[in-house]
Amino acid sequence: MDLRINFNRLKEDILALSQFGRDPKEGISRPSFSKADFEARDWLKIRIKDAGLTLRQDGAGNIFGRLEGEGKTIMAGSHIDTVINGGIFDGSVGVLSALECLRRIKEEGLRLAKPLEVASFTDEEGNLVGDFLGSRAFVGLLERENLEKGMTKFGTPLLDILKGTEFTIDSILNAHRHSPEIEAFLELHIEQGTVLETENKTIGIVDCIAGKQYRWCYFLGEAGHAGTTPFELRHDAFLGLADFALKSTQHVATHHYGSKLTIGKVSVSPGAFTIIPARVDFSLDFRSTSKETLDNLEKYILELGEDIASTRGLKFNSLLMDKTDPVTPSSRINAIMKEECQKLGFSSMKLSSGAGHDAQIMASVAEMGMIFIPCVDGISHSPKEMIDWDDLEKGANLLLNVLIRLANLNYS
Amino acid sequence: MDLRINFNRLKEDILALSQFGRDPKEGISRPSFSKADFEARDWLKIRIKDAGLTLRQDGAGNIFGRLEGEGKTIMAGSHIDTVINGGIFDGSVGVLSALECLRRIKEEGLRLAKPLEVASFTDEEGNLVGDFLGSRAFVGLLERENLEKGMTKFGTPLLDILKGTEFTIDSILNAHRHSPEIEAFLELHIEQGTVLETENKTIGIVDCIAGKQYRWCYFLGEAGHAGTTPFELRHDAFLGLADFALKSTQHVATHHYGSKLTIGKVSVSPGAFTIIPARVDFSLDFRSTSKETLDNLEKYILELGEDIASTRGLKFNSLLMDKTDPVTPSSRINAIMKEECQKLGFSSMKLSSGAGHDAQIMASVAEMGMIFIPCVDGISHSPKEMIDWDDLEKGANLLLNVLIRLANLNYS
Repeated sequence: MDLRINFNRLKEDILALSQFGRDPKEGISRPSFSKADFEARDWLKIRIKDAGLTLRQDGAGNIFGRLEGEGKTIMAGSHIDTVINGGIFDGSVGVLSALECLRRIKEEGLRLAKPLEVASFTDEEGNLVGDFLGSRAFVGLLERENLEKGMTKFGTPLLDILKGTEFTIDSILNAHRHSPEIEAFLELHIEQGTVLETENKTIGIVDCIAGKQYRWCYFLGEAGHAGTTPFELRHDAFLGLADFALKSTQHVATHHYGSKLTIGKVSVSPGAFTIIPARVDFSLDFRSTSKETLDNLEKYILELGEDIASTRGLKFNSLLMDKTDPVTPSSRINAIMKEECQKLGFSSMKLSSGAGHDAQIMASVAEMGMIFIPCVDGISHSPKEMIDWDDLEKGANLLLNVLIRLANLNYS
Repeated sequence: MDLRINFNRLKEDILALSQFGRDPKEGISRPSFSKADFEARDWLKIRIKDAGLTLRQDGAGNIFGRLEGEGKTIMAGSHIDTVINGGIFDGSVGVLSALECLRRIKEEGLRLAKPLEVASFTDEEGNLVGDFLGSRAFVGLLERENLEKGMTKFGTPLLDILKGTEFTIDSILNAHRHSPEIEAFLELHIEQGTVLETENKTIGIVDCIAGKQYRWCYFLGEAGHAGTTPFELRHDAFLGLADFALKSTQHVATHHYGSKLTIGKVSVSPGAFTIIPARVDFSLDFRSTSKETLDNLEKYILELGEDIASTRGLKFNSLLMDKTDPVTPSSRINAIMKEECQKLGFSSMKLSSGAGHDAQIMASVAEMGMIFIPCVDGISHSPKEMIDWDDLEKGANLLLNVLIRLANLNYS
């Protein structure tokens, strides 16, 4: 027997989901717990029920569809929330491919050794209060204080956002108490990079998810009149950042090839044409597949900030906001993935993930594996996000066959 | 006869005016046409009337106090509006010293050859719609379109601000029709720099007011995922600005010593931790006492922007927002100032002004002269703005004696 997903149905699901949260500006803006997200959730719940799966929602708003079986659960999924002005594939392809796999298994009447679940995790994109709220809640990796004091990316306290929902800090913190035991977690995702495209491969088998640090930093100088303060008396906080940005980027590009460093958010105060910047606050995001590199980069960043501050008469500060170590997927699952690719005739390669995923959180409680499919020009988190639909069909068929292998079903 | 100002009265006036617009955060926030400004205006009008001067207000909200005489007017003044979180001396010392001078002349009953006026100009700081609204209105240098489309620094259309006042676009544009003919304009101001302090001189006789360009520029790149986009595929708009900021600053400091360049306002889009900046908009302010240098800098800036854009795969754009040429005060007035300093026993020196002043606008219709007094550490546009009061007393006495010389009165 040669089970395949119903590709047209999967494509229709992706296009249907993409109608929720269309931004009048461009792309999709569907942060978790927004109106558009709740509409998308209602749609997803109906699709899960229509598939004949058992619908479940936990206290963090994670949504599951279950096919019963014995023992620990084999789970596959991702997220349906998006960044602001994001694309239609990031996250969605993982949830809806998993749904399609379970739907096909159900409608074919295959007998399962182990239970299977599709999962859609809340706020993978971290619009509310740091990345992976849902998967962290699922595995019990959240702290009450962070939630109670948490501010969303839109400047609203998390508590205020929750008031309009059926969820509370307590329900989120307690979600993991009701989580089933998970044996394996699989996530299909767009690569968000250009490796598969460049290497002309259809399937990426992830061999490492990069670790990262998020830091919120500032340089503090002194305001002054732009027309009268000579250069030698200036303490221009913005020039401190300019120096820092160029040096740190060059350092990573030169000494840690493959690692990344990004300054994405910048606020200059007081922020007037004629006033020398007194202060600049900025985000720092650096990532690597090597824990040693991350540790070295932390040290380097802090020293560079102090050096520049001391040279330019500024003060430097850097606050750690979030930190994850690199995560390695299960070698057993990756071996199965490779075998199934060969059986199916799909070209595949190992590659690392620079982006974070719910899968890395799930790795703390289960064997984990990730399937990447190419995305055009590596673009994601953008309205321009695009895939070759054929690649998705192949990725979803791989997911289906790996799920069946893991659920230990003999169906030959 | 040896006429001197009443210093205690002047100091009391400055401290009284400083009570309007105290910012709960810090310093003085008294932009023109704010509630605090209207309260300060009412207070100033009473002080002018109490001094026995003829009060006049024009259609731009400029306030004048006049001592009658024959022929063209000798005027002295400055402004009472402030930047947000500014100090108590910038502008105020010029208006209130001029008031004190006319008050002393009036109370001594000196017979004048020419009319004298104290002037307080609206919105010198450009909070409403570009610098020098009041003095530009006085000399007829405003364009209707700029006012009608004008947005204030607070993001409100100028038209909305005017609705709450007795002023209109028409009254501002017509103000100059009622302006008296001006023979000479004098402005006493804090230096806003450290030259006098460094050289240990009490009086600065301004020999040039720097010209400037204000530009609003951007680099346009491409957004991308901070974790997955390799450096060689990035088009990071913020790194373009970092490069531009360091190179342009170094160029001015190295090749045009004494000229200034400042990037004071920066906006990074989309502005998220994990997204490579697609666009950065920024202000550019460069100034010089040499028109040739300004022309060279304009050319350099535009070439540098294009070079960086081309190297980094970005697009560069630069829009001219405002431009003034360097202005040279009257050599006749400066010679009189120097003579009066010698008579009064005040140390003095020539120096240029990096900041712009109403005086440079008045220079388009009259002989002009500026008196600088030191300010502590060169700090202005800041709650830390401070002076040595003795310096102010000397500066105001110089103003008094120069006014009398210019009004052609024999009082020996």
